Amino acid sequence: MQRLFLASTSTIHGKPYLTYILPELLQFFKGIDEILFIPFARPSGLTHDEYTAVARKAFASINIKVKGLHECKDPIKSIKEAKGFFTGGGNSFVLLNELYQLNVLPVLRESILNGTPYFGTSAGSNIAGPSIRNTNDMPIVYPPSFDSIGVIPFNINPHYLDPDPTSKHMGETRETRINEYQFYNKISVIGLREGSWLEVNGTEIMLKGELNARWFETGKKTIELNTNTKIVSI
Amino acid sequence: MQRLFLASTSTIHGKPYLTYILPELLQFFKGIDEILFIPFARPSGLTHDEYTAVARKAFASINIKVKGLHECKDPIKSIKEAKGFFTGGGNSFVLLNELYQLNVLPVLRESILNGTPYFGTSAGSNIAGPSIRNTNDMPIVYPPSFDSIGVIPFNINPHYLDPDPTSKHMGETRETRINEYQFYNKISVIGLREGSWLEVNGTEIMLKGELNARWFETGKKTIELNTNTKIVSI
Repeated sequence: MQRLFLASTSTIHGKPYLTYILPELLQFFKGIDEILFIPFARPSGLTHDEYTAVARKAFASINIKVKGLHECKDPIKSIKEAKGFFTGGGNSFVLLNELYQLNVLPVLRESILNGTPYFGTSAGSNIAGPSIRNTNDMPIVYPPSFDSIGVIPFNINPHYLDPDPTSKHMGETRETRINEYQFYNKISVIGLREGSWLEVNGTEIMLKGELNARWFETGKKTIELNTNTKIVSI
Repeated sequence: MQRLFLASTSTIHGKPYLTYILPELLQFFKGIDEILFIPFARPSGLTHDEYTAVARKAFASINIKVKGLHECKDPIKSIKEAKGFFTGGGNSFVLLNELYQLNVLPVLRESILNGTPYFGTSAGSNIAGPSIRNTNDMPIVYPPSFDSIGVIPFNINPHYLDPDPTSKHMGETRETRINEYQFYNKISVIGLREGSWLEVNGTEIMLKGELNARWFETGKKTIELNTNTKIVSI
């Protein structure tokens, strides 16, 4: 039974990295003493070592060791043997491209479907959907495809922002961008506000955190999803 | 001698479509009575007919007729025969993908290099650079490449936004995104604030409009470029 914890963001304004969800992560990774960290999204250009050190420090506080996938000589074997995964945020194009280069998307998908718990933040959550077509990131590298892990049946737009009625900026709002997406794609999208996350247990997906989320489904009116409710069945 | 007019945005807050630059466009297209409009970026999902009607209405006020490229039976021939171009904003991925599907990028590039004046707004300006790797748009379709027309030697980030020091949102700032781009790409980027535009005359590129622009060059400190100055030689 697959288990995923997909967060909109790693960090809430004013709080240290991951602290707002550490109690939940302790539950999510119960009984697991080491996880495999996927550092490829490189936020602000952090090296894989630097980024892994950030994740390691946060998980040390709940007594979970962190190994970086870039440290593994045989990434496919390491993914197969991992007890849990954490993919950090950054640039979704860079992250996905690196996963394609290493040819690890199929084994990552298989491991998740077989029940290895997967935790993602931002870009790390984005790639759990069928594609990265709803990322907010800049396309700074060209991946072989926008198709991603696809272990949930809809895409995630992390860091979802509501339109600001006082803004004088003429760039598209997040809602406009996702509406444009729906002209070309049938797969639904959840706009996850910062502080929200999805908990996936087998066929059940729950929205968690203090805020509601935004649900975009082609041909239907966009709606608000209440937090702490089951949102869809796989 | 190539001539381009590359605007950050079509519309300034509170003013009708294109009105803030119509006097300059009248000069730019002096002596030209008809231009070819490229409506493929489809802002808010507008049909090509609807979008062309918007452009047609704006240009009617300066007595320039507008023909939509989608109306042409032979797009390559129409591009070769065009007296001027206007590519409207919308989604850069959708726009570029359609240009690839029609196989018109080479002829468009050739026509511009041969002197047919080109006006772009937002996504239409973005594609004048070597690639769309600095678009703000959502990757809602997968184009065969991110390479674009490449008639100027740097990329454009339209609708450039300065970081908001009061923001509590944890998504990346525009500056962070462009800095991340520089880890993977050597081509420079200009952040064009709304209301700014570039005027290209042969080898000379001038920044115009009321605001300064932001210049990102790999290995150098990011700087402000003053408006009404020559910014770079091709």
